[in-house]
Amino acid sequence: MTPEEFRKAGYEVVDWIADYLARTRDYPVLPDMSPGDLAARLPQSAPESGEPMERILDDYRKLVVPAVTHWNHPNFYAYFSVSGSPPGILGEMLAAALNVNGMLWKSCPAATELEQVTLGWLRQWMGLPEEFFGVIHDTASANTLHSIAAARELAEPEAHATGGSGRLTLYTSEQAHSSVEKGAIVAGIGQKNVRKIPVDDAFRLRADVLGKLIEEDLAAGKKPFCVVATAGTTSTTSVDPLEEMAGIAAQYGLWLHVDAAYGGPVSILPEFRRLFAGLERADSIVTNPHKWMFTPLDCSVLYTRRPDILKRAFSLVPEYLKTAEDSQAVNLMDYGVSLGRRFRALKLWFVMRYYGREGVCRILRQHIAWAQELRAAIQADPRFEICAPTPFSVVCFRLQASDAENQSLMDRVNRTGKIFMSHTALHGRIVLRLAIGNIGTTREDVMEAWELVRKTAG
Amino acid sequence: MTPEEFRKAGYEVVDWIADYLARTRDYPVLPDMSPGDLAARLPQSAPESGEPMERILDDYRKLVVPAVTHWNHPNFYAYFSVSGSPPGILGEMLAAALNVNGMLWKSCPAATELEQVTLGWLRQWMGLPEEFFGVIHDTASANTLHSIAAARELAEPEAHATGGSGRLTLYTSEQAHSSVEKGAIVAGIGQKNVRKIPVDDAFRLRADVLGKLIEEDLAAGKKPFCVVATAGTTSTTSVDPLEEMAGIAAQYGLWLHVDAAYGGPVSILPEFRRLFAGLERADSIVTNPHKWMFTPLDCSVLYTRRPDILKRAFSLVPEYLKTAEDSQAVNLMDYGVSLGRRFRALKLWFVMRYYGREGVCRILRQHIAWAQELRAAIQADPRFEICAPTPFSVVCFRLQASDAENQSLMDRVNRTGKIFMSHTALHGRIVLRLAIGNIGTTREDVMEAWELVRKTAG
Repeated sequence: MTPEEFRKAGYEVVDWIADYLARTRDYPVLPDMSPGDLAARLPQSAPESGEPMERILDDYRKLVVPAVTHWNHPNFYAYFSVSGSPPGILGEMLAAALNVNGMLWKSCPAATELEQVTLGWLRQWMGLPEEFFGVIHDTASANTLHSIAAARELAEPEAHATGGSGRLTLYTSEQAHSSVEKGAIVAGIGQKNVRKIPVDDAFRLRADVLGKLIEEDLAAGKKPFCVVATAGTTSTTSVDPLEEMAGIAAQYGLWLHVDAAYGGPVSILPEFRRLFAGLERADSIVTNPHKWMFTPLDCSVLYTRRPDILKRAFSLVPEYLKTAEDSQAVNLMDYGVSLGRRFRALKLWFVMRYYGREGVCRILRQHIAWAQELRAAIQADPRFEICAPTPFSVVCFRLQASDAENQSLMDRVNRTGKIFMSHTALHGRIVLRLAIGNIGTTREDVMEAWELVRKTAG
Repeated sequence: MTPEEFRKAGYEVVDWIADYLARTRDYPVLPDMSPGDLAARLPQSAPESGEPMERILDDYRKLVVPAVTHWNHPNFYAYFSVSGSPPGILGEMLAAALNVNGMLWKSCPAATELEQVTLGWLRQWMGLPEEFFGVIHDTASANTLHSIAAARELAEPEAHATGGSGRLTLYTSEQAHSSVEKGAIVAGIGQKNVRKIPVDDAFRLRADVLGKLIEEDLAAGKKPFCVVATAGTTSTTSVDPLEEMAGIAAQYGLWLHVDAAYGGPVSILPEFRRLFAGLERADSIVTNPHKWMFTPLDCSVLYTRRPDILKRAFSLVPEYLKTAEDSQAVNLMDYGVSLGRRFRALKLWFVMRYYGREGVCRILRQHIAWAQELRAAIQADPRFEICAPTPFSVVCFRLQASDAENQSLMDRVNRTGKIFMSHTALHGRIVLRLAIGNIGTTREDVMEAWELVRKTAG
């Protein structure tokens, strides 16, 4: 494809995106299809000869788009709502064209330094001390695995050479994300060595039980090594008692990792800072600009006060990756599993500059305010009940009826294509979740979503 | 940013990319800068108020681009040369705008099904049997970690719950990529439990030593569980004896993982298929379309004949991720660490369709032919020596002089900004590598690169 052909196709793609952003609401959030429907419409084999871009873009519009679940839709309220914001999309376009691999400083100084600078900016916004070093990986799940590996490196350095002892134990809440357990399985810690601590009425880890379990494990010859707190759990967005957990971690010399994948950006708001007290005492923190900071997937930030330990866990430098600058520069490949690294900081830099701190704060505050309003509206309807506190922008509620009726209500609402919401289980019962977080969502969208749920309930 | 503002900025970005693609050769491949130079030119803090896109794009051009190592430059010959091809860039643009998370079929049927379809196409191109299941992760390093974890799941299923025994041993060549060792460390297998097998004159793993070491380990009470072969090593692109290794793996019941991150695409060429004999017997294979198949970073494919085992190693489904389609559809989150998944298949689909099998084959054949020509030219110059066979498109050579003189030659060549090459070590000596693989590279580029090296050598 010549540069001029690219220019023409590029304009066409930009036009499609601009129209998409203007009319996202015209799309059903969820496609009306069954597993295999798209695959059945695609050829069984790739073409022998190349095809014109025009035909490919046509198939994109006719076949792919109708099979998309529109995460960038203002009425996407499932899981955690995310945003491919316009400045973020522009950043991704340029990153794809440069196509750099920022594994080493030398292999792309811009990618390395812009990552360090933007993560310094975000660290300041979050009120974290300067000693926190940041690095971007693809997902929070990956970053939690990285943190568990770093924690092991500190607690059982001999495991690096000889493998784990099978005695290490990790502590997290029963409301923690599945990635904590998955990280422990992958790292060879073992699923049974993950202690799931019960939660209080507000779904926060019970610190008293944490201390007790650590003592029991120590008495039984186990080696407690890591505590994983959550600031914004997936089911209810509850925030564990970070200060207390930091105290316990310090008392027993355990690594404290905080999963703030969703909640982290809220720590930018001064009026919410108190909820995050203790975050600054963490050994590692994960927060996802690709969740609630308007940055396209994927961009998950790992902060650590112990970059030396993270590096000890992950650095392996073969001859072919040695450079003259190794002693003066940060080589980001030293801080993780993946050697290849996209220029993910570019989109984050675009987003942080385009919206500024004020812009980000304004949008977060709106989302939180609308969630509170929605919560009040639900509370006012006697057929429904609120199932958890609403510290941020996710409202958990249910019809005062059976699980089957709640499931059916959600399915019927989702089948309209107007909104998409998801569920969780609390105290063994199905609970509906409405998660606000897309940059295009308005107050009216949220109120109409509630109206739809109400009406569908009959 | 309104859709119309996006359209305007989008056109501007497309114009920049088109001009960049037209005039990449005008840029120095390597920037002339020292660590910290870019960071020093950027503000210490993010802006309070949002900034106009125009100013951000201006800073991108003035500050970021001059600090970029141009991996998309036709004269980038370091590490492995890659390509952000025009159709791949267009695919990334759309993926950023849709911003879907393909963790579940339901969370984006298009992302899930297009990934399965395109990986089926690629599997056919590579001549692999239908039973191979494919999934995309970010990097080969991550996919090798996934394969090691799957191998453990099969060999020591109890490790899933209780952690590793410390007895598992893994076998790979001393020329294998550092990610094999890193994967073993992260998974808790331990670095000392990675046996590095010596290589033959052509830098291929010695299968006779492999068999012997497995026997020794068994006799010593160890548990051999995994063999990692390489089809295209990083230093010299050597291909291990896959057929023999598959035989040994089968004999001892070990998982065979093949790192074909670089070499995999060459198996599409019928005349090279014999080099890959045995690949079809692997339990898992990693190959990177983002390396030598013109797809922008990141897109690394993991194939496995044992998706059941991979899933057993990685599947954890909390209530909030359960869907009605779980029994009928593939949920790609079940096959890896990361829950979040970008729509990476879109760019691969664009690339495979735009170039077709013939187009991909034609470009690969050119790169390989030019490398052979370059090799012959180097051989004809008595001051230089060839240091390894050249099965594909990477030529390893050195000045018949000291390591310091070779290092100095490389540094002087790279400082011209005209080309960028990197080095490795073979038999304890510094060796220069010239890796051909960018889609924009021409025969003339390669010959001029050699001319530059020759002249710089004096």
